[in-house]
Amino acid sequence: MSGVIGVFSKDNNHVSPRIYFGLYALQHRGHVSTGMAVNNNGFVDYIKELGTVHDVFNNDSINRLRGNIAIGHVRYASTFEAKDKVNASPLVVGYKKGALAITLDGSIVNFLKIKDEMEDSGSIFQTDLDTEVIANLIARYHKDELNDAIVKAVGEIRGSYALIVMTNDRIVAARDTHGIKPLSIGKIGEDYIIASETCAFDTIGAEFIRDVNPGEVVVIDKDGLKTIHESPKKRSLCIFELIYLARPDSIIDDRSVYLARFEAGKQLYRELDTKADIVIGAPDSGIVAAIGYAEASGIPYAEGIIKNRYIGRTFIEPTQEIREQGVRIKLNALKENIKGKSLVLVDDSIVRGTTIKRTVDMLKKAGAKEVHVRISSPPVLHSCHLGVDTPSEEHLISSYMSVDEITKEIGADSLYFISLPGLVKACGGDNGFCKGCFNGDYPVMKE
Amino acid sequence: MSGVIGVFSKDNNHVSPRIYFGLYALQHRGHVSTGMAVNNNGFVDYIKELGTVHDVFNNDSINRLRGNIAIGHVRYASTFEAKDKVNASPLVVGYKKGALAITLDGSIVNFLKIKDEMEDSGSIFQTDLDTEVIANLIARYHKDELNDAIVKAVGEIRGSYALIVMTNDRIVAARDTHGIKPLSIGKIGEDYIIASETCAFDTIGAEFIRDVNPGEVVVIDKDGLKTIHESPKKRSLCIFELIYLARPDSIIDDRSVYLARFEAGKQLYRELDTKADIVIGAPDSGIVAAIGYAEASGIPYAEGIIKNRYIGRTFIEPTQEIREQGVRIKLNALKENIKGKSLVLVDDSIVRGTTIKRTVDMLKKAGAKEVHVRISSPPVLHSCHLGVDTPSEEHLISSYMSVDEITKEIGADSLYFISLPGLVKACGGDNGFCKGCFNGDYPVMKE
Amino acid sequence: MSGVIGVFSKDNNHVSPRIYFGLYALQHRGHVSTGMAVNNNGFVDYIKELGTVHDVFNNDSINRLRGNIAIGHVRYASTFEAKDKVNASPLVVGYKKGALAITLDGSIVNFLKIKDEMEDSGSIFQTDLDTEVIANLIARYHKDELNDAIVKAVGEIRGSYALIVMTNDRIVAARDTHGIKPLSIGKIGEDYIIASETCAFDTIGAEFIRDVNPGEVVVIDKDGLKTIHESPKKRSLCIFELIYLARPDSIIDDRSVYLARFEAGKQLYRELDTKADIVIGAPDSGIVAAIGYAEASGIPYAEGIIKNRYIGRTFIEPTQEIREQGVRIKLNALKENIKGKSLVLVDDSIVRGTTIKRTVDMLKKAGAKEVHVRISSPPVLHSCHLGVDTPSEEHLISSYMSVDEITKEIGADSLYFISLPGLVKACGGDNGFCKGCFNGDYPVMKE
Amino acid sequence: MSGVIGVFSKDNNHVSPRIYFGLYALQHRGHVSTGMAVNNNGFVDYIKELGTVHDVFNNDSINRLRGNIAIGHVRYASTFEAKDKVNASPLVVGYKKGALAITLDGSIVNFLKIKDEMEDSGSIFQTDLDTEVIANLIARYHKDELNDAIVKAVGEIRGSYALIVMTNDRIVAARDTHGIKPLSIGKIGEDYIIASETCAFDTIGAEFIRDVNPGEVVVIDKDGLKTIHESPKKRSLCIFELIYLARPDSIIDDRSVYLARFEAGKQLYRELDTKADIVIGAPDSGIVAAIGYAEASGIPYAEGIIKNRYIGRTFIEPTQEIREQGVRIKLNALKENIKGKSLVLVDDSIVRGTTIKRTVDMLKKAGAKEVHVRISSPPVLHSCHLGVDTPSEEHLISSYMSVDEITKEIGADSLYFISLPGLVKACGGDNGFCKGCFNGDYPVMKE
Repeated sequence: MSGVIGVFSKDNNHVSPRIYFGLYALQHRGHVSTGMAVNNNGFVDYIKELGTVHDVFNNDSINRLRGNIAIGHVRYASTFEAKDKVNASPLVVGYKKGALAITLDGSIVNFLKIKDEMEDSGSIFQTDLDTEVIANLIARYHKDELNDAIVKAVGEIRGSYALIVMTNDRIVAARDTHGIKPLSIGKIGEDYIIASETCAFDTIGAEFIRDVNPGEVVVIDKDGLKTIHESPKKRSLCIFELIYLARPDSIIDDRSVYLARFEAGKQLYRELDTKADIVIGAPDSGIVAAIGYAEASGIPYAEGIIKNRYIGRTFIEPTQEIREQGVRIKLNALKENIKGKSLVLVDDSIVRGTTIKRTVDMLKKAGAKEVHVRISSPPVLHSCHLGVDTPSEEHLISSYMSVDEITKEIGADSLYFISLPGLVKACGGDNGFCKGCFNGDYPVMKE
Repeated sequence: MSGVIGVFSKDNNHVSPRIYFGLYALQHRGHVSTGMAVNNNGFVDYIKELGTVHDVFNNDSINRLRGNIAIGHVRYASTFEAKDKVNASPLVVGYKKGALAITLDGSIVNFLKIKDEMEDSGSIFQTDLDTEVIANLIARYHKDELNDAIVKAVGEIRGSYALIVMTNDRIVAARDTHGIKPLSIGKIGEDYIIASETCAFDTIGAEFIRDVNPGEVVVIDKDGLKTIHESPKKRSLCIFELIYLARPDSIIDDRSVYLARFEAGKQLYRELDTKADIVIGAPDSGIVAAIGYAEASGIPYAEGIIKNRYIGRTFIEPTQEIREQGVRIKLNALKENIKGKSLVLVDDSIVRGTTIKRTVDMLKKAGAKEVHVRISSPPVLHSCHLGVDTPSEEHLISSYMSVDEITKEIGADSLYFISLPGLVKACGGDNGFCKGCFNGDYPVMKE
Repeated sequence: MSGVIGVFSKDNNHVSPRIYFGLYALQHRGHVSTGMAVNNNGFVDYIKELGTVHDVFNNDSINRLRGNIAIGHVRYASTFEAKDKVNASPLVVGYKKGALAITLDGSIVNFLKIKDEMEDSGSIFQTDLDTEVIANLIARYHKDELNDAIVKAVGEIRGSYALIVMTNDRIVAARDTHGIKPLSIGKIGEDYIIASETCAFDTIGAEFIRDVNPGEVVVIDKDGLKTIHESPKKRSLCIFELIYLARPDSIIDDRSVYLARFEAGKQLYRELDTKADIVIGAPDSGIVAAIGYAEASGIPYAEGIIKNRYIGRTFIEPTQEIREQGVRIKLNALKENIKGKSLVLVDDSIVRGTTIKRTVDMLKKAGAKEVHVRISSPPVLHSCHLGVDTPSEEHLISSYMSVDEITKEIGADSLYFISLPGLVKACGGDNGFCKGCFNGDYPVMKE
Repeated sequence: MSGVIGVFSKDNNHVSPRIYFGLYALQHRGHVSTGMAVNNNGFVDYIKELGTVHDVFNNDSINRLRGNIAIGHVRYASTFEAKDKVNASPLVVGYKKGALAITLDGSIVNFLKIKDEMEDSGSIFQTDLDTEVIANLIARYHKDELNDAIVKAVGEIRGSYALIVMTNDRIVAARDTHGIKPLSIGKIGEDYIIASETCAFDTIGAEFIRDVNPGEVVVIDKDGLKTIHESPKKRSLCIFELIYLARPDSIIDDRSVYLARFEAGKQLYRELDTKADIVIGAPDSGIVAAIGYAEASGIPYAEGIIKNRYIGRTFIEPTQEIREQGVRIKLNALKENIKGKSLVLVDDSIVRGTTIKRTVDMLKKAGAKEVHVRISSPPVLHSCHLGVDTPSEEHLISSYMSVDEITKEIGADSLYFISLPGLVKACGGDNGFCKGCFNGDYPVMKE
């Protein structure tokens, strides 16, 4: 997963702060590396490093990155990918027509096949990035008009993607034909902005215009915004964006992420009534659904767990010995609030099952009488190959244990997963989602 | 304000990780500097720097700091104090009897008077720290037995304090005679731990034993824990610890911080009934009271504002121009959730009035129909000289505006502050608080 | 200019320290960036950054870089080249047959032409490096056997170069057909080492075997050293390597750099007898010739100027105002030793004329009666396009001033340049040098 | 050993660059820590850290340090002293009369005795620095006029020292009563400068005025330079300043350091005639004496050893295994120049004997026929307690081996040390030196 952003401005003073603040708003989409490339009259300058926005940029670098077009990236490396500096984005290359800077959220399923064909014809590769293949495709079509070249290149890639390409005089953005990955268009004054999520627009005071459509390629240049290609397929937004990935204040394809989670919480109660003293959420991703559950059930919402906000990337993990002494460094139960009580604990999903087990254990040790676990997504049974970092299937607890077995394993008094139709309904009805991780039905197959 | 912590262990392997994790739990008490001193058979090593625990310590430094006694500190420098490295704590000095390391949370009101007398007799000072005066006092009594010397030194200082002194073979801890500052004792295995708040005990799996009593001096050495001095005055815990300063999962003088805030929220509703669609809290300090308010009123609790968790110390502030475009970088309203609704917005306090004004404005711009502001502490009228960083009185909005004027100034539809008796009741009844910032009645006067 | 080095070992423990110490020995060939790539059973790891060996490597990085084959690079960026991190070497790429790491000292004159053709056929470029073109050439021939592919690639480039290519199982090294750039082969135990200068062998205790011949391509693999291609042209070693570039303890094409400079000093005296009290050298490059001059003339050798050895890369340049007060930060005249004396001042070359002017002025101000400047190379009249960083011709003082004019300009009492035949004789007779900067006759012309 | 410097200026713009460039000139006197304190109308700001001038200061810090008075320090920590940051100088303290900043080169022999008495009366100490005791002494006399207080404080310390004290309105400098440590006064425009060596004056374009006299205390304030105390004893400049410690371009007590070394080289030859092909110096400290030897003997001076100038503080030492392969990383013999020749090798001193042994071995392995070692100081028999970092006597090779035994141990063909009278003569005749390391006769005894 990644966060991508691009800005096209009429002047030279705003693009780097806008990318900077926008990347802060998208930081939840990736912590591994951060980068920005700026076009200044055909000269491209860039900074990209391992680390968060906070680690990579400072006043000096924001001042240095001047120009009227810019793109940025925050990257979440999956456990299988090298976390090397060389894989930080945007990718910046030179080709026959000048400089290209490219940034992408998603997963190109025919990446290795195209790369292999290119190596056959003598190409070299300097990174592991999907975008290096895309850059090569664009360069191969350099005799075509630039927009055509990019449309042709996009036509050859398959998968899930939100893609932003910066050239010397324009930004071209494309969303995969199923609209699996989100990508939205905003405007502030005369300037256009493209970003993975609308929360990036709020951050910089921009107005949301519309989403990029599935299969659409748009160009932004001195003449404004224009669609240069369309090829929509059945709309299949990744439903995990609504469940967990996106920020609650974002709106994706006309759906409020907050309300989807809130409704899922209500739906959870409607599907299974439970008696309890209080409803709590697992911080931070279960909070909104817990508030919905509380409202639907009339059981009071409460905080049951405090999260330490200061634990950062360089945190030194406790040793096994210290861990066994029952340390509660990142999360701590609010003993006074849960002692002797029956709890409904709402979380967004169970993947490996280790976190929820630790949480239930902590609540029980803090004196909770009962812990009823309610999950606002169905059991995760399949590993994603379209850009969400799920482990392989043998590590997905729901793929090898029944709900009863999981209940026992995690020490809960009861466990209930929302139904898939219930989740879809909470997300606004089935006008198209990728639900592959729940039902194995992916709109684009692995190659 | 600061966070202090000390550990006395039977062996050499645990003290620095315990201080490290403990300081993470106390990080909310100060971000300006962080430090740890460790005693290894009479040799004191220490690391102290500007920055947070995350910035100052890494694996190498934790491994380097070996010994069986250690103390640590996180510091919140007031706007009047130099944020220099030289003022990082703990203070480590040598004197006739060996090494002393000292760390303190609080404010010594006769600090300048003692310092002045010492300079008269030829002393030099290398820092602005209260603890340097205390070190000098202890050194002056070096002919006395060490415990006696520390008790004598403590007898000469007046103010609010939680003090921890590390010598070659013991830890001595003292709490001011009014118990204004919190200080608690925990135990893990054979090891004792002293810390500003009990959340530090949970973090490392230690068990809470008891609070240090007002005016008590305790020593922890190879023979265990012992009280070496008592001189209690009327108990006057800083009520702001419960309202805002402490972590919700801490227990101070038998009061749960979470429950105090939750009850204050309920009390707010009981004091003034209000009709509204939803109750929201100002993140993060108003959340718990908002949950209480919702429970008492039956109005649904909801999230209305999203806080960006990634904004850190080195964040580059937006320029005036960008600010005026309505940026919402740190906080963003959940438009979809508040549009057209009447809101009760709960916050813990109003000091200068600038933050609440910006919040109300953001909610209104996001479409809120009405914003009713409810504050879970009374109007702050007096500046604190006992260790809480409040601005001088001319900057306290309640000192120069009536509630009606403030309502208008901040753009709210209504504004209500909890009553002082109501707050005290929520905090568990008046068995002793310092409420000076509300009523001007401080247990220790300024010198 | 750059320094290059490669090591092929039978085991995994020695290559990174050998490259590290070898790069220290080659540091005089470039300060701008430093890098090392190591092959560990087909996995290539590398570190390359702006800065010197001292800046870029530490114990951790040397320990991390494990493998049995390694290459390294120190880079001197000319004033025209971007000093960007992206241009640090070695270049590491993947292609059909695996990984390639490439490092080069020199200048490929048909670089832009080849790059242009490649861009025509759709290639992208991510750096400004000559080696990226070479990597593309090798990749284009990936269907050939690897040695053949490299020989073919080398066959397409023209210019001056010492090239080292690392693949998964071998090192291939090539020297340009005129032998303009130096490149030597050494051996330590079973391990082979290739380096720009023999001083790198002494550093790590290796034995010098022989130079790579002009136009020769050698391969080193598990079967040892083998020549895989030969195409010598008229031998034309860059004579500036002997005059200034190389380290005095290196031996290039059977010539001792020290002795060449020493003989040039003797020759200078033989060509023009001068009366003086002492002979001094301009530190550091004029010292050896000055010692030779002293021996030939019988005039005592002395030190006249002290160089501050601590001035480093981050040195803050003095302001104009401070400069005008006659600061002598990097160099200081030894007043007591030169007051009232006639000096012969020997330096290796005059390029822009600014340094020698400042030196003469400093000596005069320190009381020197007469300063007779003797230069151990002829007037530099032409700018080099083969890898030595000389300014363009309009900045070469000898291209627009006569010797008499320069004498006056620099404030010397007399000035004499060695004759070109005299220099060649000092360098061991004319069995082939590139003397283009003196006579405009370059063995490879600019394209 | 340390280097100290102070500047008093009429304006606010020059002191920090002057200290900065001056410290560069004094860097050879210490690499362990560097610091500068600046007085800006009574507000003292300072930066001091472990590392060299290059490591500690940058443009930002030089710009930040503004004021009209400043002092600086570079420190050489002996092997016995902690290299902690806390011991970086200058020491900056506050006392009754304001701020004091103190910097010192030397060794106070009654330091522990005074410190002990102070601890008896209740003082604390935060560093291991001599200057902390001096600051306490000055503070004790705070009721006296400031100059008187400093003179009194200086009157209580014994040892070798060059001391500079900065107060809010003046600089006070003192040299020990025997003049063991050097300290000189310079002037540039209206500004005065005090420094350990005159090379610091040349660096910034200042004019040398005179040395501070043994036992003299001078003050520099807005009224200029004034002597406020005199108490000379028999003049005893540390003769090692001339032999090794000082920079060759410095003038100490009217003696040129360069000429002293040059004359010592000549004297060495006069004391013992030797036949050889060339004379070489051990870099860097033996070079000047080697030039003198060459001139006196008529044997040609040559370079025989190349020193790598890039080896810095963070250099990774080679492993034992690599070392045994005969690595020549820091020094390399010039094989071509010494093969088959008889050498006279001149060095400044033999302390432990390990370095000279390694050098002789390297020369022999490089093919030298004979190596005749000539040392321009007598055998070092006694450990210094007055500020020169010599090892304890059992590690001084001359204290447990005869000259014949050393000759054999180091593998030389012959070995000769200059006579003590010969050295004194070379240094300008016996008008007073401390020669304690040679004859055990120290002007100030250890306490």
